[in-house]
Amino acid sequence: MVRRAWVAAALCAGAALGAPPKTLSELLAQSPAADWRLLDPANTLYMEIPQGRVVIELAPHFAPQSPANIGTLAKAGYFDGLAIIRAQDNYVVQWGDPDEKNPKSLGAAKAKIPPEFTHAAKGFPFTKLPDVDTYAAETGFSAGFPAARDPKSGRAWLVHCYAMVGVGRDNAEDSGSGAELYAIIGNAARLLDRNITVVGRVVQGIDLLSPMKRGTGALGFYEKPEERTPIREVKLASELPAEKRMPLEALRTDSKTFATLVQMRRFRKDDWYKVPAGHVDVCNVPLPVRLRKD
Amino acid sequence: MVRRAWVAAALCAGAALGAPPKTLSELLAQSPAADWRLLDPANTLYMEIPQGRVVIELAPHFAPQSPANIGTLAKAGYFDGLAIIRAQDNYVVQWGDPDEKNPKSLGAAKAKIPPEFTHAAKGFPFTKLPDVDTYAAETGFSAGFPAARDPKSGRAWLVHCYAMVGVGRDNAEDSGSGAELYAIIGNAARLLDRNITVVGRVVQGIDLLSPMKRGTGALGFYEKPEERTPIREVKLASELPAEKRMPLEALRTDSKTFATLVQMRRFRKDDWYKVPAGHVDVCNVPLPVRLRKD
Repeated sequence: MVRRAWVAAALCAGAALGAPPKTLSELLAQSPAADWRLLDPANTLYMEIPQGRVVIELAPHFAPQSPANIGTLAKAGYFDGLAIIRAQDNYVVQWGDPDEKNPKSLGAAKAKIPPEFTHAAKGFPFTKLPDVDTYAAETGFSAGFPAARDPKSGRAWLVHCYAMVGVGRDNAEDSGSGAELYAIIGNAARLLDRNITVVGRVVQGIDLLSPMKRGTGALGFYEKPEERTPIREVKLASELPAEKRMPLEALRTDSKTFATLVQMRRFRKDDWYKVPAGHVDVCNVPLPVRLRKD
Repeated sequence: MVRRAWVAAALCAGAALGAPPKTLSELLAQSPAADWRLLDPANTLYMEIPQGRVVIELAPHFAPQSPANIGTLAKAGYFDGLAIIRAQDNYVVQWGDPDEKNPKSLGAAKAKIPPEFTHAAKGFPFTKLPDVDTYAAETGFSAGFPAARDPKSGRAWLVHCYAMVGVGRDNAEDSGSGAELYAIIGNAARLLDRNITVVGRVVQGIDLLSPMKRGTGALGFYEKPEERTPIREVKLASELPAEKRMPLEALRTDSKTFATLVQMRRFRKDDWYKVPAGHVDVCNVPLPVRLRKD
């Protein structure tokens, strides 16, 4: 909501050499290579739609069974030819098999998976944020994903921030297989936390999903087949030869650079920002991902 | 992220007559007429774009000068023929004059307005939420808008939830006139709170703005003129004859029905929801608006 005159000025204002970073871009440009991690090709999905490629990082450290099942489905070509079937404003875009009457076979993949809604907090990686949260005793980041923790119950979970990906299910807790997935495209849907299996995050291409035409049916499901966006293909990066994989790297959420990023975000003050919030919630912390330069 | 089989089941499950409401729709259907207020035509904007009508309720009780200036601009036809000039993913859609070199005259409207970023908490209507918030000592609702309050500083402000509308400005605090406006189309942008003048909320048609193609320039500004969405016209509802105004009514945020809505949201539990959050943040409370039936 800055005006363009300001944008131009900000882009021209280079930082003095060696000065402490004033912007996120400067911070990332100065960060050591060790603060970044390459995405694991065995847990990275490439979803090809007419608009381009959507890249999803899976989180097997949180929900081991669901990502494994999604991998089985992807390797069997299950998603190829399916579609985006739902776009509900300020909520989710969802994809899967549009044919309810004659659904595609899941092949060797499981049709039901026990709920992976939460995880034992003990041993679960967690970098804690200092600020209070409306929903959880503690929030922070776990191996690159926004997360929460409750010392009382001893449980931890991934939270429904923008671009997070989860497993659609029916009423039964074990009814989600990963054959139908959704991504958050609006305000953080924190009421969903602990009610559904979160499996990952869109690390590139959420801006291809978020502008999808909203569906006019109940809950944003498309009413006409031609409104759906076809999915050409979903593959694990590991299925591609090494030279065809994207060398995407994510800033480690347990790194010093990330800790600085959090502080810069909490106390954001520059020529435009007059009043630093002094706080930040788990869904307002950027999680940088970039192409590794060789 | 429910699957469609469940959606169909939920839609067919009618509530028993006279039973306490189980869903938001049931609650609203049972609510007394007095819990609703008609939008004030003198503070309601109709913005006509090719996709349809976007309706914005202005909040003069919070920021009197900016909505008045926007009204002056609308009455003079200032916005007619301007455009959506920016769409930044998970952030804002912004509109105004695309011509920076030969900008349209503001006519009788002011070019600068003293910042209306916060308001005295004393006398400011406020219905408090019970849960803690990351950013503010208190959050709640003020005359239909999401708001926050700080007893220490004695200030209150409207918060940047989804669909909230604010006044674009340059670095100077008084540089926003209302000639350039933005609406939040992603996660609540709470870092903006108290840094910019919030003037209202999109009460209908945010789903026409949120799917706009994202701009590829810095901060999501469109790089090519043809990417911009033209604005045919912006009028105050009060400029139209009474029979052409939309009889939109909003649920009063100081009503008993709204208090029940908040509780239902905090303790959402049904056939699908297994674990109620037990809390709700100010940006996850729906603010119902509907056409009044005569």
